[in-house]
Amino acid sequence: MASYPNSGGPIVTRVPVGDNRERLVCDACGYVEYDNPKIVVGAVVRRGDRVLLCRRAINPRKGFWTLPAGFLELHESTEAGARREAFEEACAEIRIRALLAVYNIPRLSQVQLIYQADLLSEARPGEESLEVGLFTWDQVPWGQLAFPSVRWALHQEREVRGLAAFAPRGNPPEEDGRY
Amino acid sequence: MASYPNSGGPIVTRVPVGDNRERLVCDACGYVEYDNPKIVVGAVVRRGDRVLLCRRAINPRKGFWTLPAGFLELHESTEAGARREAFEEACAEIRIRALLAVYNIPRLSQVQLIYQADLLSEARPGEESLEVGLFTWDQVPWGQLAFPSVRWALHQEREVRGLAAFAPRGNPPEEDGRY
Repeated sequence: MASYPNSGGPIVTRVPVGDNRERLVCDACGYVEYDNPKIVVGAVVRRGDRVLLCRRAINPRKGFWTLPAGFLELHESTEAGARREAFEEACAEIRIRALLAVYNIPRLSQVQLIYQADLLSEARPGEESLEVGLFTWDQVPWGQLAFPSVRWALHQEREVRGLAAFAPRGNPPEEDGRY
Repeated sequence: MASYPNSGGPIVTRVPVGDNRERLVCDACGYVEYDNPKIVVGAVVRRGDRVLLCRRAINPRKGFWTLPAGFLELHESTEAGARREAFEEACAEIRIRALLAVYNIPRLSQVQLIYQADLLSEARPGEESLEVGLFTWDQVPWGQLAFPSVRWALHQEREVRGLAAFAPRGNPPEEDGRY
């Protein structure tokens, strides 16, 4: 695991040579801490006309419904990460079809890659879920979704269903930045 | 800037409560260091039948040709990051058309989002470039490209040219993981 140095040197904030932004720099070992946005990977997982949602057992938004999704880990591909999250949160095996959307949440320094996927197994709550369920469009607990991007993804997955090839969707224009 | 704590507490490697992987944890303040993959944003920038390449003034691969691309910064959207990199490396204003490709480089814990874009201005070397140029397909310095993904992106941009909507490309199957 790449990590912050523990060389004992003083840590200062300055612009490293050849850079144009302030970073945290260790004067003893020369290490520069580049803090960058994080990638969230997840999926709208479908079986027939129903989609898989998980009720969160952890904060933020404990008790609310979300897509299986989470932070990409080191040395993991985005597709593998989306499959892992479905397995961790819903004990679900999935097959990825296509990249549904790329959502930018600059306020949180977060980029979300949400895939369109099929459910290949049963689903039951993993450690981070209170319960999981398969919902038709009318059954989706719209008032109890955990994050705006869950709603975006469900709507956009409905739009692209049946399309052979499509450009991934992004933040809905009217909501861009309001997260 | 979110940053590693400087609370003076001992830093240990263990699995935090509710997690399933070892992380660096500060016992004094409870901070957990989540080290995650980094996002590279860039673009295949076109004017007519020519594409913009930059010869790198810095390592890695100093002296070799690359697309304008670099690490996404905190609080930046992926499109804004791709525009910034084109400006920093080639003093170029660009208009983004579509997401061309998502490349996974798990060995480097890197996810690359490469856009298809048009060149709106002149181009000249920025601080990180020795020179920049516009190349037709036959003029591209194929033997002096900095990274495999530069070649992938140039080939895939050629495939999708003229398509109204397309799914973003990924690592070429025969080269997946060989980076």
